[in-house]
Amino acid sequence: MRPGAKQLRRVPALAKVANAVLEEIDMFSRVVRFPRNAELFRQGTMPVVLYFLLDGLVALSSSMPDGSAAVVDVIRPVGDLLLASIFAALPYLQTAHAVSETELIAVEAPKLRTLAEREPALGGALLRAVSRDSRGMVRHVRDLKLRTSAQRLGAYLLDQMEDREAPRAEFRLPFEKGLLAARLGCRQENLSRAFATLRGFGVETHGGQVILHDVAKLTAYAVPDYLGDPELVRRGR
Amino acid sequence: MRPGAKQLRRVPALAKVANAVLEEIDMFSRVVRFPRNAELFRQGTMPVVLYFLLDGLVALSSSMPDGSAAVVDVIRPVGDLLLASIFAALPYLQTAHAVSETELIAVEAPKLRTLAEREPALGGALLRAVSRDSRGMVRHVRDLKLRTSAQRLGAYLLDQMEDREAPRAEFRLPFEKGLLAARLGCRQENLSRAFATLRGFGVETHGGQVILHDVAKLTAYAVPDYLGDPELVRRGR
Repeated sequence: MRPGAKQLRRVPALAKVANAVLEEIDMFSRVVRFPRNAELFRQGTMPVVLYFLLDGLVALSSSMPDGSAAVVDVIRPVGDLLLASIFAALPYLQTAHAVSETELIAVEAPKLRTLAEREPALGGALLRAVSRDSRGMVRHVRDLKLRTSAQRLGAYLLDQMEDREAPRAEFRLPFEKGLLAARLGCRQENLSRAFATLRGFGVETHGGQVILHDVAKLTAYAVPDYLGDPELVRRGR
Repeated sequence: MRPGAKQLRRVPALAKVANAVLEEIDMFSRVVRFPRNAELFRQGTMPVVLYFLLDGLVALSSSMPDGSAAVVDVIRPVGDLLLASIFAALPYLQTAHAVSETELIAVEAPKLRTLAEREPALGGALLRAVSRDSRGMVRHVRDLKLRTSAQRLGAYLLDQMEDREAPRAEFRLPFEKGLLAARLGCRQENLSRAFATLRGFGVETHGGQVILHDVAKLTAYAVPDYLGDPELVRRGR
């Protein structure tokens, strides 16, 4: 099934593309679904399609030459998988797994690359999108180098809030704690310790349910990136 | 002074651009020099020029809203500063300092953006370059999540070798140990411990002078990225 203009417009990089260009993209795109735990693609293989995640969550892990692997990121809707590999035209650096049932748009990569070279506005939009992805990874490196595990967890929880102005929030963790620890770059026992530390900053958990009783206090402790970053304030993650 | 075609061609993203396009870029580019410790640009400000580093080293650090800062990367020739911020047209996420005397090409950013939209081959080359930068940051995240400090140091030292096939190598550290620790994401006392650990893998140091007596043994321990990565094998770094 083709996604159609409405679904394609949900992709930030395509939101402002001309109708005629969007119709052309629609011709070589389709909507695909994967069950939980399915592998979307594997590190080391060449990208054939570019995915945009419409619904669900996808974990990206990357392994070293000795086989040890780390979760680099967990992609939320509407994120891309993976613009940088598509446009570098190089083998994937990461393996993608569906964390939950997922719905995605799959766009044929060679046709998109050709179209981007012919349509400068599309090329420009994709260049901006890759640039934003790249800046996201810079923030990730900074997060790992500067924040303690407890601060990383705090910043991550604050980032889950729907309304950043709310003084209090309650939500479910989007995925299980093993994956959360991996995403944050700590061991599971460190994650438990981090949750214990955050109790002092008004964070209550029951299984996957999280209550932030004092958003101001947690914000002061975890100093989430969006505090000083106009890009994040505007866009929400 | 304009850089001229020969210097511009040293930039990987511009190596294959048509002569006419390169001449146009040359018209709004100039060669600039900065002394050691000079600030090239500051986090939070809007990019005006895109720099390509021809000679010297530049440290990129990024600070959190509370003022604490981390060195995200140290750029070597011929690296870019910073394609992602130029093409996202968003404030810098990093502050750049000259680690040594530097020579750079400064390209007026708005003119380059306009030209990239008009010349698809240039747009495509820049899209590939940003994509490669983004993949570099993915490797950095993986490095921080998977390797111990000693392994990170080992992988970094192996990456400094001019000839990766050599069984033994000797070179000077490109910058002082405080900055090296920051780049690797550890404290200076951890760096000293990491060097001590690496003695068991044939690494000898005298101040900034490094001798790798047993490249094979160190490689097996640190599993540097280029082992399984065709992109890095081909390109160096």
